[in-house]
Amino acid sequence: MDIEFTLEQIAQLVSASAVEGQAGQTVSSIASLSQAGPGDLSFLGNKKYTPEVAGCRASVVLLPPDYEGTPTEGQAFVRVENPSLALAALCTEIERRLHPVPVAGIHPSAVVADTAEVDATATVGPQCVIEAGSKVGPGTVLAAQVYIGRDAVVGENCMLRPHATVGDRCVLGARVTLHAGVVVGSDGFGYETVNGVHQKVPQIGNVVIEDDVEIGANSTIDRARFSSTRIGQGTKIDNLVQIAHNVETGKGCIIVAQTGIGGSTTLEDYVILAGQTGIAGHLRLSQGTILAAQSGLHNNTKPGDRLFGTPAIEAKLAYKTDVLKKRLPELFKRVAKLEEDMKGNA
Amino acid sequence: MDIEFTLEQIAQLVSASAVEGQAGQTVSSIASLSQAGPGDLSFLGNKKYTPEVAGCRASVVLLPPDYEGTPTEGQAFVRVENPSLALAALCTEIERRLHPVPVAGIHPSAVVADTAEVDATATVGPQCVIEAGSKVGPGTVLAAQVYIGRDAVVGENCMLRPHATVGDRCVLGARVTLHAGVVVGSDGFGYETVNGVHQKVPQIGNVVIEDDVEIGANSTIDRARFSSTRIGQGTKIDNLVQIAHNVETGKGCIIVAQTGIGGSTTLEDYVILAGQTGIAGHLRLSQGTILAAQSGLHNNTKPGDRLFGTPAIEAKLAYKTDVLKKRLPELFKRVAKLEEDMKGNA
Amino acid sequence: MDIEFTLEQIAQLVSASAVEGQAGQTVSSIASLSQAGPGDLSFLGNKKYTPEVAGCRASVVLLPPDYEGTPTEGQAFVRVENPSLALAALCTEIERRLHPVPVAGIHPSAVVADTAEVDATATVGPQCVIEAGSKVGPGTVLAAQVYIGRDAVVGENCMLRPHATVGDRCVLGARVTLHAGVVVGSDGFGYETVNGVHQKVPQIGNVVIEDDVEIGANSTIDRARFSSTRIGQGTKIDNLVQIAHNVETGKGCIIVAQTGIGGSTTLEDYVILAGQTGIAGHLRLSQGTILAAQSGLHNNTKPGDRLFGTPAIEAKLAYKTDVLKKRLPELFKRVAKLEEDMKGNA
Repeated sequence: MDIEFTLEQIAQLVSASAVEGQAGQTVSSIASLSQAGPGDLSFLGNKKYTPEVAGCRASVVLLPPDYEGTPTEGQAFVRVENPSLALAALCTEIERRLHPVPVAGIHPSAVVADTAEVDATATVGPQCVIEAGSKVGPGTVLAAQVYIGRDAVVGENCMLRPHATVGDRCVLGARVTLHAGVVVGSDGFGYETVNGVHQKVPQIGNVVIEDDVEIGANSTIDRARFSSTRIGQGTKIDNLVQIAHNVETGKGCIIVAQTGIGGSTTLEDYVILAGQTGIAGHLRLSQGTILAAQSGLHNNTKPGDRLFGTPAIEAKLAYKTDVLKKRLPELFKRVAKLEEDMKGNA
Repeated sequence: MDIEFTLEQIAQLVSASAVEGQAGQTVSSIASLSQAGPGDLSFLGNKKYTPEVAGCRASVVLLPPDYEGTPTEGQAFVRVENPSLALAALCTEIERRLHPVPVAGIHPSAVVADTAEVDATATVGPQCVIEAGSKVGPGTVLAAQVYIGRDAVVGENCMLRPHATVGDRCVLGARVTLHAGVVVGSDGFGYETVNGVHQKVPQIGNVVIEDDVEIGANSTIDRARFSSTRIGQGTKIDNLVQIAHNVETGKGCIIVAQTGIGGSTTLEDYVILAGQTGIAGHLRLSQGTILAAQSGLHNNTKPGDRLFGTPAIEAKLAYKTDVLKKRLPELFKRVAKLEEDMKGNA
Repeated sequence: MDIEFTLEQIAQLVSASAVEGQAGQTVSSIASLSQAGPGDLSFLGNKKYTPEVAGCRASVVLLPPDYEGTPTEGQAFVRVENPSLALAALCTEIERRLHPVPVAGIHPSAVVADTAEVDATATVGPQCVIEAGSKVGPGTVLAAQVYIGRDAVVGENCMLRPHATVGDRCVLGARVTLHAGVVVGSDGFGYETVNGVHQKVPQIGNVVIEDDVEIGANSTIDRARFSSTRIGQGTKIDNLVQIAHNVETGKGCIIVAQTGIGGSTTLEDYVILAGQTGIAGHLRLSQGTILAAQSGLHNNTKPGDRLFGTPAIEAKLAYKTDVLKKRLPELFKRVAKLEEDMKGNA
C-alpha cells in the first residue's frame, strides 16, 4: 500500500499499553495471523485464532493484555485493550493517507442547473448532473457520474460514489454514504388492475435518509406512494438491498445484502435482517428483532424476537425442526414398523 | 409538496358523487388515516382501516358510498366509487404539476452518433450516449447519463431514468419505462466447458421489450443467445430482478423485486411472481400462475396454479405441511411413546 | 441480423464432416428447431429435442453424425461432431461481424487524469472517467460512462461495459469482462457497535480480479477490509451477484445470478453455486462443491459435495425429505390412528 509505519508510530496510533520485542523492519501492510510475514502487522481479533499467534511471522502483532506468549526474534507484540478496535484506528489512519482530501469545487464536465445550490466547500466530480432547485451541502463529495434530481437535498459531509442516483425531491441528511450505483427515489411498485390493464399508481412521495446512514452498492430505495420512505438515523444497508415504497426503518438497523422489504413495512430501532431475507409488506418489526439469513417473514414480530425460516418461526424451534426433518425417512420407517406390529398384535 | 387543492378542485378531480361537510383549509398533502392532520387529504382504500376514519383528523377524506359516518368540524367527506382509484387520479394531477414537461432537444453534453436518429420531440438529457445507427422515438425522454448502444431502437413516449443501459440491437416499444440503473441487453450466461476451461457461448440475440412495460431500478435483462429475449406487452417488473437469456413473458405479467428467471423459460399471460422467487430454466408457466414469495420453481405449471415453497408445491399443501413441520418435535415423541407402549404390549 | 451465409460458408465455418441436401436460400438468422423457418439455421444441441428435427422448417440444420433422417426439399443437413460447439463457432463469426472493432483512442468527452496511463491501443469511450495514477492496458475497451478510480489497474484486452465502476487501487487481469453496472471495489460491510453506534470498520484493502473472469450486470464485489478480495482465474459470475469483503474464489468457479457470498469465505477451484444461493461468512468450500439453487450454506464442504436446502444438506437426502415433508398430513393421521389402536389394545 506504499504506506509505512515504525513500531513507535503504531504504538502511538493504537494507544498501546505495552510493547514487547523489536520489530525487525517497518510495517507496510496488514495480514491475518496465518498469512502474515515480515513487514506485516497482524492482530488477534477473535479468541478462536489464539493458537495461530505462536507461529505468526508478522513483524508486529496487536494482542490483548491476557495473551500469554513472547515475540520471536525481529517481532514485536503491541498490547491493547481491544485489538479489533486498535486495528480500526490504524486503518483509519491508513485510509486518511490513501484518500487525499478531494478538492472543493465543480468539475468543468459536470452539468449543474443554474438554480441548484452547491456549497462552496462541496466537491462535484466529473460528469455529475445536478438538476434544478437541488442543494448540495458543505463538505459533501459527489465522486463522479452522480445524478441529483430536481429539488433534492443532499446534506453536509456526504459521500456519493460513482453512478449513484438521488431522485427528485429526495432528502439526504448529514454524513450519508451512497456507494456506487445506489438508486434513491425510484418509483414504488404499485398498480391498479382494471380490465386486465395494470394502471400505474402515481408515486409522488419521496425518500428521506437520516444522518449517518450508509447504503451499499446497487441497492435501491423506492420513493413513497405519498409522504416518505424513511431510513432511520445510523442505519446501515449492505449491497443489492431492495427497500419498497413507504418503508420506515428505525435507528441503527442493520440490513445485510440482497434483503428485500415490502411496501409500508416498519422496522423499529436496531432490527437486524441477515442476508437474503424477505419481509412482506405492511408489517411491523419490533425493536431488536433478528431475522436469520434467507428467512421470509409474513407476520409482525415482538421485541427481541429471533426468527428463522420461510415462513419465519422462532429460531430455536426452526433449528430443531430442521434437524428432525432430516430424520423423516427414519420416522416413516418407524411408523410403518409400528403399523406392522399393530397388525400382528390385533 | 407546494401543491394546494381546494375542496371544490378535489371533488372535481375525483368525480365525486357527493360532498359532506366543509374543509377548514386547502389541502396540501396526503397522509394515511392514522397519520393525517389538518391540511391533509386521506382515504379509505382498504376496508380493514374503516375504524380509523372516525378519529381521522384530515381536512378531506375520500370515502366509498357505503361508509356510515359524518365529518367533524372543519372536515369534508368526499364520496367516490373507489377511493384508491380516486386517489390515483388526484396523484396523477399532482405528478403532472410536480414534473414539468421536459424540453425537447439534445443536451449539449450528450454524445450522439452522427448516424443515430433522434426524433425532434424527444429529450436527450445531460451526459447521455447514443451510439451509431440507433433510433429514439417521438416524445421519449432519456433523463441523464443514459446509454443507448448501436442499432438499438427506443419507441415513442418512453422514459429512461439515469444510468439506464440499452444494449446493441435491443428494441423498446412505446411507453416503456426503465428506472435508474436498469440494464437491458447484457450477455446471457452461457459457457461450454472444454478441458476445464469455460468457453463463452456467444450471445448474439437481442432483447425486445413490448409496449407499456415498466422495469424497476437496477434490474437486468439478458440478451438472447440467438433470436430474442422478450418482455410481453404491459408486463411490470420491480427492482433488482434478473431475467436470463431467451426468457419470454406473456402480456400483463407481474414480477416482484429480486426475482430471477432462468434461461429459455416462458411465462404465459398474467403470471404473477412474488418477491425473491426463483424459476429454473427451460420451463413453461401457464397463464395465471401465481408463485408465492421466495418460492423456487423447478417444474412446468398448469393454468391458475398457486404454488409455494422450495421446491414449489401446491400452496395449500405447502402451508399445511409448514404447520405440521413445526409439530415434528411432538410427532417424534408420540412415535417414541408408541414404540414404548408396543414393547410393553408385546 | 443483416448477416447472410451460404451453405458452403456455413459448412466451412463449422468444419462439417458432411453436407446433405441443398439449402433453398441463404441463411440470415438462427432459431430453435420448433420456431425455425426458411432462411433460418437450426441445430440439435440436446438429444431430447431429436423428435423435432423431422418437422423443422429451417433451411440448414446442424446435426450430429448419428442422427437418422434426411433433409426435406430446400433443406440441408450439416453434419458436425458437436452441434452446440459448431453453433458457437458460427455465432462467434456473426459476433465478429456485428461488433466492429472499436477505434483506439480516448473520446474527447472522457475525463482522464494527467497521471493516468492509457495504452495507445486501448479505447476509452464517451463520458468515461479515469482517476489519477490508474493504468489501462493494451486492447482494453471502456465502452462508455465507465469509472476507473485512483491507482487502479485494468489489464490487457478487457471489456468494461457502460456504467461499470472499478474502485481505487483495484486490479483487473487480462481479458476480464465487466458487464454494465458492475461495481468492483465497494466498501465491505463492517461495523463495530459501541454504545449503540455502528462505527465503520475502515475497508482499506482492494479487489483483485484474475485473468479471463467475466462478471454479470449490476453485480457487486466488495474490497477487502485489508489485503484483497480475489476472484480466481477463469471464474464466471452472473448478474446481481454479491461478493463480500475478503472472499477468495479459486479457478473456474461458476456463480449464478443473485447469489451472495459472505465475508472471508473461500471457494476452492471449480465450485458451482446455482442461482440465489447464499453462503455464510468465514467458510471454506472444497473443490468441485455444487450447491443447488436457493440453498443456504452454513458449513464447510468436502470435495465434490452436492448440497441443497436451507440449511443446505446432502442433496439426495434433501430431495428425499422434501418428498416426505409433503406426506406429513398423512403421517400425522397414521400416528393418530396408531394411538387410537393402541388405546383399544390396552
